[in-house]
Amino acid sequence: MAGQPPEAGTGTLRRSLLALLLLLPLASAGHAAQCQVRGTGDLGIVVERVAGNVVVVDTTRGAILSRITGLGDLSHASAVFSRDARYAYLFGRDGGLSKLDLLCGRVVGRIVQGGNSIGGAISQDGSLIAVSNYEPGGVKIFSASDLQPVAEIPATPIGGGKRSRTVGLVDAPGQRFIFSLFDSGEIWIAALDNPESPALEKFEKVGRQPYDALITPDGRYYIAGLFGEDGLAMLDLWHTEKGVRRILDHYGKGERKLPVYKMPHLEGWAIAGERAFLPAVGHHEVLVVERGGWKSTASIPVHGQPVFVMARPDGRQVWVNFAFPHNDTIQVIDTESLQVIATLKPGKGTLHMEFTPRGEQVWISVRDEDLVKIYDTATLKQRGSLKIHKPSGIFFTSRAHRTGL
Amino acid sequence: MAGQPPEAGTGTLRRSLLALLLLLPLASAGHAAQCQVRGTGDLGIVVERVAGNVVVVDTTRGAILSRITGLGDLSHASAVFSRDARYAYLFGRDGGLSKLDLLCGRVVGRIVQGGNSIGGAISQDGSLIAVSNYEPGGVKIFSASDLQPVAEIPATPIGGGKRSRTVGLVDAPGQRFIFSLFDSGEIWIAALDNPESPALEKFEKVGRQPYDALITPDGRYYIAGLFGEDGLAMLDLWHTEKGVRRILDHYGKGERKLPVYKMPHLEGWAIAGERAFLPAVGHHEVLVVERGGWKSTASIPVHGQPVFVMARPDGRQVWVNFAFPHNDTIQVIDTESLQVIATLKPGKGTLHMEFTPRGEQVWISVRDEDLVKIYDTATLKQRGSLKIHKPSGIFFTSRAHRTGL
Repeated sequence: MAGQPPEAGTGTLRRSLLALLLLLPLASAGHAAQCQVRGTGDLGIVVERVAGNVVVVDTTRGAILSRITGLGDLSHASAVFSRDARYAYLFGRDGGLSKLDLLCGRVVGRIVQGGNSIGGAISQDGSLIAVSNYEPGGVKIFSASDLQPVAEIPATPIGGGKRSRTVGLVDAPGQRFIFSLFDSGEIWIAALDNPESPALEKFEKVGRQPYDALITPDGRYYIAGLFGEDGLAMLDLWHTEKGVRRILDHYGKGERKLPVYKMPHLEGWAIAGERAFLPAVGHHEVLVVERGGWKSTASIPVHGQPVFVMARPDGRQVWVNFAFPHNDTIQVIDTESLQVIATLKPGKGTLHMEFTPRGEQVWISVRDEDLVKIYDTATLKQRGSLKIHKPSGIFFTSRAHRTGL
Repeated sequence: MAGQPPEAGTGTLRRSLLALLLLLPLASAGHAAQCQVRGTGDLGIVVERVAGNVVVVDTTRGAILSRITGLGDLSHASAVFSRDARYAYLFGRDGGLSKLDLLCGRVVGRIVQGGNSIGGAISQDGSLIAVSNYEPGGVKIFSASDLQPVAEIPATPIGGGKRSRTVGLVDAPGQRFIFSLFDSGEIWIAALDNPESPALEKFEKVGRQPYDALITPDGRYYIAGLFGEDGLAMLDLWHTEKGVRRILDHYGKGERKLPVYKMPHLEGWAIAGERAFLPAVGHHEVLVVERGGWKSTASIPVHGQPVFVMARPDGRQVWVNFAFPHNDTIQVIDTESLQVIATLKPGKGTLHMEFTPRGEQVWISVRDEDLVKIYDTATLKQRGSLKIHKPSGIFFTSRAHRTGL
């Protein structure tokens, strides 16, 4: 799902800043065009949203490897990775799908596959890329190798020649993609065993206006947030015959009238052991949910309205960032005591976080300082930073090996 | 921990077979010496134990990339990977520690660091390699970059100028290594914040003769098997102040007199959600343990004495192989119904299994057929095979991003 915080606007392309960036040594095309013999397990990308660039980073040395430019509108851009961890597939808000070669620092394929899109996924075996579109409403499937179209899944017609917008697209075990239909209130499972003719299983009347979704790290539960009513819609993929059920009935209660960009992303949930930690809607709280019964058992008071609530890979800590005007702050929650154990101030526009695969570091985008700051998660101290222009989403290649990321 | 099944003997180095292997096209030095610009997220190694080789494989194409020869005694050999997923660190039974470059198909460093060793680990940040030694008893720490010695942790003296053998070495979050002392009945935590002077925390009288150990995938629980008495010793690393406690009191009951090589490896435990599945000692059963209270709640009758009990990454299935004379068989258990849903016959000497990172395939070593067989975990059908001489341990680079592997 989209890895951008909801308060982030589209921003303006400032040519003066772009020109400045071209003067940076690492931005030179000559550097970027050289391919490297090196491992790809410790690579990642940072989105420079305003400039429409992606910066390729090395998390072992804490260094920038290359800058890939000309990628279109990258507001709410997200990325997935090839199973060899060499290529990033970048999903732009403008329907652009770019395949980036991290070893050579260049675009190896780019299509504009829709007019207005929101996120994508890569199949379990790495052979297929799926993109979720608002316009035209539906999901398109492409070959991961050459971005050639493989199949198209038009969403339910909603009158006036239009089709429902699709959101909350994730991959699931068994070569499946799962997504939600915003306008028609559905969840669909597409099985791609035969890639050219996806087998669809449709769940109707799941709730009004599903706007985003997540899949648990084990690939079992698909959970969609509902913009049009309270609660969440949950599908147990081990038991699709049981249909979609409602959980957390009061989730979002009384917050229906907020503008859509105030709804927290569902990717901003942390699953730590048998507990889920999730941002409350419109409140300064993180909710704690027991996975067994999917009931909320506690709420943790925090500094502002949480946006992303992310678990350190070992599940011992949860890191939280906040919506404006509290978006200069990170809080760290101990998942055992449920206490806030630290309040950090990375700076204004603290938009996104990504943990290194084994969790010893977390990288944090600080937009208004043009920095990505690197923290040690044991000492909670900053250990370095990288100069990156208006950084937003950060994505590391270890996502290649996880379900739903 | 060692990734070799207990029934596997040391084997004999047969020069005639070695000569034969040199005739295989992929074994040619010319091929191996070329370095490739490619991703490393889908690579792995297969140990050819008898010949003392390692075969580098690509799990996307199901192909052999190179063969690296001359690696010494590889019985019970295991491997860990650098955080960039380019290098494998191979731990031989003869104390050899080899650093292998998977992109170039060659040895880039090799030392014989002890006389008789059993497994190793890589630190959370990827900078340190630890090796567990029988002789001299203790743990040695090396630089991951150049294999230079960094520190030495001699084990407890046991008289006659000897020190306790060390076993069950794993990495843990917070730049720590945990290991057990077989002869002195201890568990030690070594914190490597200052690599040259490890800070030790020692737990004595944990039980008689800990012989192997595991750490849960979240890095929280360290569990050691006891050869000298029933039950298992468990340390909660979030609460070391509580000390080591005994769990599963009857584990191994009545099986004390079996030869040591009949004891199942503890790496052969599957953690699937809140359940652990573990091989019963000396019985044709897989035990089911609830993680909350660490109590055994069920036992599943299986085809033979289980050796490795491994969870598919999504936790839906557990795959089991067996000790001689049942070592031609794999059984697949559904982790929800706790039923055996399939019995497969890969062939004699079915020694080891490794799942691809997102679980769509499992690779199985079939020693007596000189094949690694690749199964689709959705259909449970074989989808390919690779000709590899007396294959044993299989290790994929995605281990680089996991704790305790």
